[in-house]
Amino acid sequence: MNISKEKDFSNWFNTIISDAQLCDLRYNVKGFVVFRPWAVKTMKLMYEEYEKVLEKNGHEPAIFPSLIPEKNFDIEGEHVKGFTPEVFWVESAGDSKLEERLAMRPTSETAMYQMYSLWVRGRVDLPIKIYQSCQVWRYETKATKPFFRSREFHWIEAHDAFATKEEAEAQVEQDMQMSKQVLTEKLGIPFVFFQRPQWDKFPGAVNTFAADTLMPDGKALQLPSTHLLGQNFSKAFDVAFQNEKEEKEFVWQTCYGPCISRIYGALFCIHGDERGLVLPFEFAPLQAVIVPILGKGKDGASIIKYCQSICNILQGAGIRAKVDESENTPGFKYNYWELRGVPVRIEVGGREAEGAKATILVRDGEKKDKKEVAFDELVGHIMEEGKKLSMRLKRQADEKFANSLHEAKTMHELGEKLKLGGIVRIPFVSMENDSKKYADEIKEKFAGDVRGIKYPAEKAPSGEKCVVSGKEATCWAYVAKQY
Amino acid sequence: MNISKEKDFSNWFNTIISDAQLCDLRYNVKGFVVFRPWAVKTMKLMYEEYEKVLEKNGHEPAIFPSLIPEKNFDIEGEHVKGFTPEVFWVESAGDSKLEERLAMRPTSETAMYQMYSLWVRGRVDLPIKIYQSCQVWRYETKATKPFFRSREFHWIEAHDAFATKEEAEAQVEQDMQMSKQVLTEKLGIPFVFFQRPQWDKFPGAVNTFAADTLMPDGKALQLPSTHLLGQNFSKAFDVAFQNEKEEKEFVWQTCYGPCISRIYGALFCIHGDERGLVLPFEFAPLQAVIVPILGKGKDGASIIKYCQSICNILQGAGIRAKVDESENTPGFKYNYWELRGVPVRIEVGGREAEGAKATILVRDGEKKDKKEVAFDELVGHIMEEGKKLSMRLKRQADEKFANSLHEAKTMHELGEKLKLGGIVRIPFVSMENDSKKYADEIKEKFAGDVRGIKYPAEKAPSGEKCVVSGKEATCWAYVAKQY
Repeated sequence: MNISKEKDFSNWFNTIISDAQLCDLRYNVKGFVVFRPWAVKTMKLMYEEYEKVLEKNGHEPAIFPSLIPEKNFDIEGEHVKGFTPEVFWVESAGDSKLEERLAMRPTSETAMYQMYSLWVRGRVDLPIKIYQSCQVWRYETKATKPFFRSREFHWIEAHDAFATKEEAEAQVEQDMQMSKQVLTEKLGIPFVFFQRPQWDKFPGAVNTFAADTLMPDGKALQLPSTHLLGQNFSKAFDVAFQNEKEEKEFVWQTCYGPCISRIYGALFCIHGDERGLVLPFEFAPLQAVIVPILGKGKDGASIIKYCQSICNILQGAGIRAKVDESENTPGFKYNYWELRGVPVRIEVGGREAEGAKATILVRDGEKKDKKEVAFDELVGHIMEEGKKLSMRLKRQADEKFANSLHEAKTMHELGEKLKLGGIVRIPFVSMENDSKKYADEIKEKFAGDVRGIKYPAEKAPSGEKCVVSGKEATCWAYVAKQY
Repeated sequence: MNISKEKDFSNWFNTIISDAQLCDLRYNVKGFVVFRPWAVKTMKLMYEEYEKVLEKNGHEPAIFPSLIPEKNFDIEGEHVKGFTPEVFWVESAGDSKLEERLAMRPTSETAMYQMYSLWVRGRVDLPIKIYQSCQVWRYETKATKPFFRSREFHWIEAHDAFATKEEAEAQVEQDMQMSKQVLTEKLGIPFVFFQRPQWDKFPGAVNTFAADTLMPDGKALQLPSTHLLGQNFSKAFDVAFQNEKEEKEFVWQTCYGPCISRIYGALFCIHGDERGLVLPFEFAPLQAVIVPILGKGKDGASIIKYCQSICNILQGAGIRAKVDESENTPGFKYNYWELRGVPVRIEVGGREAEGAKATILVRDGEKKDKKEVAFDELVGHIMEEGKKLSMRLKRQADEKFANSLHEAKTMHELGEKLKLGGIVRIPFVSMENDSKKYADEIKEKFAGDVRGIKYPAEKAPSGEKCVVSGKEATCWAYVAKQY
């Protein structure tokens, strides 16, 4: 594609989703897109990985209905205020008007907790740790952007209920750990967990913790968030148990929502380059493509046959591989598969076929990095190179992320630093609701958002003044422009 | 549960879904249920298996929006007539009335084929073989029944487009083959593929082929169906390519829809027994449960430790295993896991722990079938017994199915045979629309439905008269009561 994502991110983004066939924006409902096979294959691998980690941590899968009666929303006051403006409403079916409007779930608290109320009787029924992999619908009024913000998106939501506050708090920590296991360790996506300001938490939560990463244009993108719900919902939905003294106790709840379609967006934006997608080895739909080079006077059939035998041993070793036997030129094929981020390219001409070897190039390498590898060593070599590629991607992303963290101690400095992109740390008055007006001032002046305080909490700045209000600063706040 | 599914299927069915916690019917939208973890875990394994087979046969996954503009439905005349009465309509979002009503997809032809029209330009873009795993919504006016007929159900839909009629016809055959690979070979579910009568085909199809199995009460249940769409939709949605002569040609299409939630229903109804679920080894959420037997005076800690070491080697071999360390009695645990269909129970008392062995009982066995197995042989033994269990289930189901196929040559005989349950073969006038009135007569008299002719086609009955009309019979029709 030959576009720099650093210099022209918007163009890079629009080009890659169309050229690498990640999604199609021409679907005829506003804010809805078609996710095409190349993106879906990686998203499926991401779902699998996430579900594995959730299950290892005691979660079980369930499937709840996607329609929720309007009356369920009215039960928790903050929740209804937060979500009602975003709900798609089903009002009729066939020829009949429905007696009650049904919401297409924007999130499933109000569908699930009425069932939890039926399921929880005694302490023996706790904890409940259930997740569902599904889509949700939100009538976004902000500009939509494929993968980042659509009116239908694909996520996992885990909803947990505990007998004690301590267990719920520990779950929030576990949710952050799981985010790290998948996003950092597997996908190479750097992020910081922030505790969101009181004015920016999930409707109905006591506290919201959300991971922010950075896009190539320096804007923050929210990734998984986990919410300490306390007893807000359990009191509203009557999710309670009899304790040892036969008293009624309400459960303590948490919910966690990694959005797979959005994380996929972050993944390709963070690792991609001017030639197209670059994907960690484990998550590439195709991990190795074998390109036969059939020059004049060469024995085409025997080269193809040799390519097939390479493909067979790779597949036998569990590597997703294929031979590109299409009629295009090798050069065309190189570009095609580079654009799609296939981690390993294997070139096979007459010389390779005769010598029982192959020429290997890893996706992020240059021509000069090509290596000849003997047939017998191919599997081991590709596995090794794949692992190294994933590690390189993670390291580069981490470095870039670390270089995008700034600090400012005056409004002027904050404005200057925000122009650089990234996240700026400032002394700030507090995260309580009455400090929202100072955050609004930052928003108005610099289009920057206060993302919260770091989690776990940092030591408060000592003797510093809030850069906006001039009052005593009680915390380090983090500011960024956001998607 | 101690209920015979043959004698009292309805009671058996309602009891098992509640006692084994397969789904919860108390969700507060009519026709919608909550699928609980025990059912979802098996359904996930079934999805995985089906997706693997689809991909092996050249299909790729995609995700299309779940909302479809009303105007898309109007494009194919038969399709709109067939589905409009069943559609849930989204009419507003937030506070706004939508400009156009959006259908919650009852099936995705009208969402997908407008995109196929954009994607297909030349022969090089064909075939398209795309599937999506998703849910669909239908406002059923018939009585709903969990798993069998809900207003939201979970399926896979594969939509294929080809340059030629022959390829489309071959795809229909491949769809039937895939049904056989998953349902017959993996799940042990017997069925017959029928070509449905013209009056009972998928709205918009040229021909519909559907697999029917039988429930314990002798009624037929439709499983996967595949539809030859011909050029009906491609002409309506303008899915066409330029052929070699630069002429416009419309593609030939098929679609295939295995409904996972329904197949799961068939699975547990066919294999279950009076004690609860019986599941093929490969699809059991838990394949082996280890029950410690801690009698008086025994060394509990060392028994538990030994159970853990068994669990570890089983898990290491890829067997889904766990130790039931709850405080219930062994007898309670036996019933509990039998009800849930865990294929292998492993009893471990002091004698087993000291002797480095374990007592094994397979789910469909009796007390007398218990076997002592040495620790070192456990993995091999359980794998072997698991395989045998799956084969036994298949064989029993096949036998029962074969015994439920009858034949009748008069209306009276048809009535008598239908009382036995199962499928009755009769000489019949034809599958064309003008024979519908004779099928209606059967429906009215015996509540039996003409399911179609067998596929591949049988030899027509020679010299027989149609049992209803008395006219010359041109085919063997199959009749059954249905869900």
